[in-house]
Amino acid sequence: MISRDKSNSSSMWGGRFGAGPAEVMREINASIPVDKRLWRQDIAGSKAHARMLAAQGIMTAADVDAIIEGLDTIERDYEANGVPEHIELEDIHMQVESRLKDLIGEAAGRLHTARSRNDQVATDFRLWVRGACAEVDKSIAGLQSALVDRAAEHADSIMPGFTHLQVAQPVTLGHHLLAYFEMAKRDRSRFADCARRLNQSPLGSAALAGTSFPIDRNATARALDFDAPTANSMDGVSDRDFAVEFLGCAAQTAIHLSRLAEEIVLWASQPFGFIKLPDAWSTGSSIMPQKRNPDAAELIRGHAGRIIGAFTSLMVTMKGLPLTYSKDMQDDKAPLFEAFDLLDLCLAAMTGMIGSVAFDTERMRAVAATGFSTATDLADWLVRAHGIPFREAHHITGSAVKLCEARGAGLELLTPADLAEIDSRLNGAALPDLSVEGSVASRTSTGGTAPVRVREAIEVARRELAG
Amino acid sequence: MISRDKSNSSSMWGGRFGAGPAEVMREINASIPVDKRLWRQDIAGSKAHARMLAAQGIMTAADVDAIIEGLDTIERDYEANGVPEHIELEDIHMQVESRLKDLIGEAAGRLHTARSRNDQVATDFRLWVRGACAEVDKSIAGLQSALVDRAAEHADSIMPGFTHLQVAQPVTLGHHLLAYFEMAKRDRSRFADCARRLNQSPLGSAALAGTSFPIDRNATARALDFDAPTANSMDGVSDRDFAVEFLGCAAQTAIHLSRLAEEIVLWASQPFGFIKLPDAWSTGSSIMPQKRNPDAAELIRGHAGRIIGAFTSLMVTMKGLPLTYSKDMQDDKAPLFEAFDLLDLCLAAMTGMIGSVAFDTERMRAVAATGFSTATDLADWLVRAHGIPFREAHHITGSAVKLCEARGAGLELLTPADLAEIDSRLNGAALPDLSVEGSVASRTSTGGTAPVRVREAIEVARRELAG
Amino acid sequence: MISRDKSNSSSMWGGRFGAGPAEVMREINASIPVDKRLWRQDIAGSKAHARMLAAQGIMTAADVDAIIEGLDTIERDYEANGVPEHIELEDIHMQVESRLKDLIGEAAGRLHTARSRNDQVATDFRLWVRGACAEVDKSIAGLQSALVDRAAEHADSIMPGFTHLQVAQPVTLGHHLLAYFEMAKRDRSRFADCARRLNQSPLGSAALAGTSFPIDRNATARALDFDAPTANSMDGVSDRDFAVEFLGCAAQTAIHLSRLAEEIVLWASQPFGFIKLPDAWSTGSSIMPQKRNPDAAELIRGHAGRIIGAFTSLMVTMKGLPLTYSKDMQDDKAPLFEAFDLLDLCLAAMTGMIGSVAFDTERMRAVAATGFSTATDLADWLVRAHGIPFREAHHITGSAVKLCEARGAGLELLTPADLAEIDSRLNGAALPDLSVEGSVASRTSTGGTAPVRVREAIEVARRELAG
Amino acid sequence: MISRDKSNSSSMWGGRFGAGPAEVMREINASIPVDKRLWRQDIAGSKAHARMLAAQGIMTAADVDAIIEGLDTIERDYEANGVPEHIELEDIHMQVESRLKDLIGEAAGRLHTARSRNDQVATDFRLWVRGACAEVDKSIAGLQSALVDRAAEHADSIMPGFTHLQVAQPVTLGHHLLAYFEMAKRDRSRFADCARRLNQSPLGSAALAGTSFPIDRNATARALDFDAPTANSMDGVSDRDFAVEFLGCAAQTAIHLSRLAEEIVLWASQPFGFIKLPDAWSTGSSIMPQKRNPDAAELIRGHAGRIIGAFTSLMVTMKGLPLTYSKDMQDDKAPLFEAFDLLDLCLAAMTGMIGSVAFDTERMRAVAATGFSTATDLADWLVRAHGIPFREAHHITGSAVKLCEARGAGLELLTPADLAEIDSRLNGAALPDLSVEGSVASRTSTGGTAPVRVREAIEVARRELAG
Repeated sequence: MISRDKSNSSSMWGGRFGAGPAEVMREINASIPVDKRLWRQDIAGSKAHARMLAAQGIMTAADVDAIIEGLDTIERDYEANGVPEHIELEDIHMQVESRLKDLIGEAAGRLHTARSRNDQVATDFRLWVRGACAEVDKSIAGLQSALVDRAAEHADSIMPGFTHLQVAQPVTLGHHLLAYFEMAKRDRSRFADCARRLNQSPLGSAALAGTSFPIDRNATARALDFDAPTANSMDGVSDRDFAVEFLGCAAQTAIHLSRLAEEIVLWASQPFGFIKLPDAWSTGSSIMPQKRNPDAAELIRGHAGRIIGAFTSLMVTMKGLPLTYSKDMQDDKAPLFEAFDLLDLCLAAMTGMIGSVAFDTERMRAVAATGFSTATDLADWLVRAHGIPFREAHHITGSAVKLCEARGAGLELLTPADLAEIDSRLNGAALPDLSVEGSVASRTSTGGTAPVRVREAIEVARRELAG
Repeated sequence: MISRDKSNSSSMWGGRFGAGPAEVMREINASIPVDKRLWRQDIAGSKAHARMLAAQGIMTAADVDAIIEGLDTIERDYEANGVPEHIELEDIHMQVESRLKDLIGEAAGRLHTARSRNDQVATDFRLWVRGACAEVDKSIAGLQSALVDRAAEHADSIMPGFTHLQVAQPVTLGHHLLAYFEMAKRDRSRFADCARRLNQSPLGSAALAGTSFPIDRNATARALDFDAPTANSMDGVSDRDFAVEFLGCAAQTAIHLSRLAEEIVLWASQPFGFIKLPDAWSTGSSIMPQKRNPDAAELIRGHAGRIIGAFTSLMVTMKGLPLTYSKDMQDDKAPLFEAFDLLDLCLAAMTGMIGSVAFDTERMRAVAATGFSTATDLADWLVRAHGIPFREAHHITGSAVKLCEARGAGLELLTPADLAEIDSRLNGAALPDLSVEGSVASRTSTGGTAPVRVREAIEVARRELAG
Repeated sequence: MISRDKSNSSSMWGGRFGAGPAEVMREINASIPVDKRLWRQDIAGSKAHARMLAAQGIMTAADVDAIIEGLDTIERDYEANGVPEHIELEDIHMQVESRLKDLIGEAAGRLHTARSRNDQVATDFRLWVRGACAEVDKSIAGLQSALVDRAAEHADSIMPGFTHLQVAQPVTLGHHLLAYFEMAKRDRSRFADCARRLNQSPLGSAALAGTSFPIDRNATARALDFDAPTANSMDGVSDRDFAVEFLGCAAQTAIHLSRLAEEIVLWASQPFGFIKLPDAWSTGSSIMPQKRNPDAAELIRGHAGRIIGAFTSLMVTMKGLPLTYSKDMQDDKAPLFEAFDLLDLCLAAMTGMIGSVAFDTERMRAVAATGFSTATDLADWLVRAHGIPFREAHHITGSAVKLCEARGAGLELLTPADLAEIDSRLNGAALPDLSVEGSVASRTSTGGTAPVRVREAIEVARRELAG
Repeated sequence: MISRDKSNSSSMWGGRFGAGPAEVMREINASIPVDKRLWRQDIAGSKAHARMLAAQGIMTAADVDAIIEGLDTIERDYEANGVPEHIELEDIHMQVESRLKDLIGEAAGRLHTARSRNDQVATDFRLWVRGACAEVDKSIAGLQSALVDRAAEHADSIMPGFTHLQVAQPVTLGHHLLAYFEMAKRDRSRFADCARRLNQSPLGSAALAGTSFPIDRNATARALDFDAPTANSMDGVSDRDFAVEFLGCAAQTAIHLSRLAEEIVLWASQPFGFIKLPDAWSTGSSIMPQKRNPDAAELIRGHAGRIIGAFTSLMVTMKGLPLTYSKDMQDDKAPLFEAFDLLDLCLAAMTGMIGSVAFDTERMRAVAATGFSTATDLADWLVRAHGIPFREAHHITGSAVKLCEARGAGLELLTPADLAEIDSRLNGAALPDLSVEGSVASRTSTGGTAPVRVREAIEVARRELAG
């Protein structure tokens, strides 16, 4: 979006009715404040295009040398001083081309041979999104490392496993953290698919129909590390699937982060008391001196809403657009850049929090022992040791829970006599280990929460991360 | 969103993993780059609060004088030089308070008596949104004026009325434009409801529970032109309905604008050829020298997607938040400011286009006469003049259309003999006027397209706008 | 959506490629499975139209009598036996008209004089939505009653007030519940605005241009309890603002319910232990016999997602549609009906839960006393009793909190000596009441949590509900 | 959603306040009306589970035989008579288990050993979505075939290529249609990725923690054609990524369909006149006997809105849910089933329309020749034949367009003298072929619109479809 900070204007709202049509038109039309982020990609694309034109004999060697030198100069300049925003130059492509003309004169005008802004922007934006996929992949891997490290510390630490936010069965903290490792793994897999699918070069699609110049689209594709040119020029300039797909991947990742953030907020709450966030990741209150708020976690949760909103935005924009390029598609970049920035920040903050949060494992264990969390163990034992059908075992266990509840005691205090009273078949049976430790240790099925399984999963995870 | 222009950073992505926790935390936590737009509201709220504290004897007259003078100084400074963004001061409230302390010393610390940032930001934001409602109302009224003026020019101009984008019945261009006047009227009515409903002051809700200081919430409400204080302090700091509702109004308005924008794009297309956009509202092509593109209309249509996205974003963020204030709610401002800016710009651009577009009424009339658009008139006449039930008349007319279609002629060339052949009851009947002019003139029902009705509607509209 | 239960088909997916075009077209085109819910409105609209036609001399008295009698018969039949779904009759309008023809013959064909399905369906749907507003209003009022009743029970019960889900200050449970009363009040106010704004009759707009028959739109408007006819016939058939607005109101209400549902889920969780849901509002587990899950609350929270989705759906559908009627608009009903059904069910379930949940006020009070929740009271007292600026008082209190934290004791055990050590100005000062009861009782500002204020609020609420 | 057809109820709204809590709770809680579509998957999962239990010695051979036989009976019964909806049995899992108990008695109760509804429903739903991916893939391939067939017919047919809905450059209809082939190819690739990624078995995750029974998760995975068991039991029951990803793929496909649908609506409009839809794919009007409306295309466009809404719904529902299973997740199925049904129907309808639409290639060619659509060809020739930099050539061409515009003639009538007057360097130059045929034939770059390229693309496409 064009930055229109009204805070500095003399009228309250900077009412627009004094503005002439030219001013409003320029403001709604100019994309330079947003698309200047594409400058590296734009210059890289122009270099590849110029070299190909020369190789194909469409441009002289002298012209291409001048163009490359000029683009090098611009690159150094932007790197050092940033990209200027000349609104009247509309977009980053005109910005670069205009500067090139200042630097090298007439030859700059030859760069646009056999190229249109339609294929140029599609190429730039694909390159940018490809880079963003790689960047996000690195960031998610960083979060995975943090999760695995903390899981390794807590492969044996017991905490309550919840369903419906009710204490359900004891699990290990390591197991819980590794659930997020799996989500992150799928997220990376999706970004990889996105990067692979988008990796075709639209350059040379020209305005929409291709061109009559004898260009070599394979050459520019190779030069820009694309796998191939796109197959249809009209699709090449109309397609924004890659941006929609990137936003979809970002939204799903943000949803995963929001789940973990929700848990951090819960765990930091006094009634839970599972964690203490370090000062670096807490903030205070302007009125309540005792407060230590999990602001970063809340903001991560909130930002998921904005990333979903950005995604929705682009889907709505693309829906129902006839071929080929329509200016509506200029609204592809602001949502994507915003989503990338927010996601990147959320990943950094979550990685920082996970790496430094202090877990109160004593408290966690204590809560894990509430709510008759080993009732399933009792039922399973009835099945295993007594051949009682599970559904019946479920009922017997329900009676045992009721008995203990009335007594105000846990299941681990149940006696053989209690059981015999509930069901005569159980007369004199020695009871199984109904402690939370016993429960956790017994869940050794593949992917289960038993520490032995968790440690295996950590090994696998570390190999994957190293790999 | 925090502006993180990576174009100037030396690494490609400004990788965040070198950053310490402090830096990431500050970046995710600081809202000053966004909420500085609230500065006027923040200062106004502080003045009202200070004066009330003094009136209630909670603060001395000397202190309040110093505070007001200090705030005046800050106001002049920000007005002249803009609001600085000291990231370490987090938000606009701390920014102002810190500056006040520099200016007047210890008394600045008394301003926060009986107030929290929770009620402060809720108050500031409500004031801002109230102002935004008023601003949008003015802008929509401006568009309505342009619509009515063009409708008055074209109360008699005939164009095709479409259903399913098929030529259906002739209408007048004036009538068509006034349909958008009605939509705009409802939009204004919704913004007015929003402004009325939000006009309660949360100031004095403090952190969430109210305060033990003998404050006068009615006094601050009055001073800030609120109708009353909010009734429940917990709701006062948790409520963002007003922002959600504003975004809902903005989305609906944007949807209306997108419909008109779609029509402008259609009408400007060569196959339609209904309009010519002036140079000020067209743009050219980088490759096709002959192009005159309706970019502004396309951007208005595209921006509707972004405004819907912003709205979705806030709904998602608010969903499922427990009471009272959660930091997620800091994500209320970026979407709302973005939606306001986009909508404001769209309204200005649409008003400009409507005011200056050239209608090719000859072409419009020609298309209105295609597609047997007066077939309904024939059917209605069969009912009226011959007492034939409408359903049967519909069938007879269908036969007449088929006859004319086969002949390659319009309905206006139908003869009494033709009709008699189709249905013997119609033997010798003189045919009604089946011209598009006749059709349009006959639709005199309330709200109908007859020029006489359109001119009445224009009168009503002008009175309303003057009102 | 057309119900296509594949569970009964012999192939796994009921592959469509055997189907002829006619079958696919009929399936995508027919709306009767959805719009049959409009049958009462359709018949009411037809009666009003027929009577008006007769009054205007467009139809004979005999015809109108036959039509009314026929419609009465259909009404009784549908009431008793439901609406049949004859797919080949497409929609409810054709369904009724076809049946009428069976019953009364040719006169049925006269009913469609000066009317189109475009204005007919717009009228039917407005009537339905108007009724839905009234229905939802009643349901929300029911929830408000339940909230007020429980608030009255618990005007003095102390619980922790949270910000950032951290214990912040003690509040009363009554105060907390009344926050939702306020949200509900705004929700009702929005539905009322929606019902008022939509209450204009599109009947007589005909296909889009109005009609040449001398109809009386005021008469049909009056007969159907509309305030007036719509002002522009093209807008009359193109407008779906009322459906979008209804969905917006529903989404906001659902968001409020989702917040309360989130709290119920939290409160029912073992670590909180604030409430116990009665058996009627809990469910068990298929594997864990001890579980008592807050399923209804979770489903209410989940349904908010679906209602937001339904709302998004209609905004997307309407965006960018040219005038006037397009068939896309047929997709207005399924999302709205779904949102209404879900909301209606959520309101009933929430009212039931609120009315019957058991609050563990002892546990609530205990948690309210944790987290140094009366620190603000100490700070306020420093300001009030000692004239210390709030910002400084905030710091002193921070030191006191640290001292108590180190000691493992609450603020209520602070001694004058402790304070004097922190700040010499406080030498010998008698300490204020820092109990949660004292804190709550002191927050007597308008809208504050003090029981005296809560009881006043309950009185006001009851008068409003009675009103 | 629970079907609550109010059309048959005697009160207008079926007011819920008479209903007891039990009734409301049952209605909000029961998912059988929705999840009964999972019956085949549920039975297949139970068979695999039972056989594995027996193989592992957890169940006797006699029990497993009885269970398999009972499940076979149920399968035959549901196949023949459909799935009954016993609301009190809540969901499809209980429905099947309860029926099994009727059939085989106590042994039925052993089936739930080492299994929970949490892993059971996750397994069932993954199986269903996997099948849906395959089904959609087939349907998209069908559309691709239709596109390629029509493209082959029209590899040489000339039509206008649009940007900004302005005539830009001539293209071939075949080329245009193949752009959608490319989109469809990406869509299939995304569904394939989704199917591959989801293909891991959660069965054996039990409630959330795994189980202490010596189950073999690899065996059940293999039996159900999964690639492997999921790696983490908590993730196994909490994960709905596969449903979100399916909806994302569906939304993107629907967006593509909406773009083609928009074009069909445009092309069928009188001002365009590019196509005539056959009767099977058109509908008439209740009031305008001459109308032939493209209803199916409009509904496809509208359904894209609903599919986007369904997708939004599930993202919102999942956002912020703590681990592991929460009942909110029951709202995963209704949106997904709805999106699948709508998409499936849209694909069938679009395939039917594409296969049978009549293109008016004469009209298309005529419009292609308007708007100076070969201006780029002139500019390219100036570059190629005269060595003029493209930017300058663009300006010269602009002057030529202006000249022709003033004359009311096309570019093909430009003379050498005209050019010489515009730029003296061009004195006497023979002009290039500026016909639309010449233009199209010249665009031979890879992926370009030249018929020779289009025919190659058709070959490639056919090989892929056969492949």
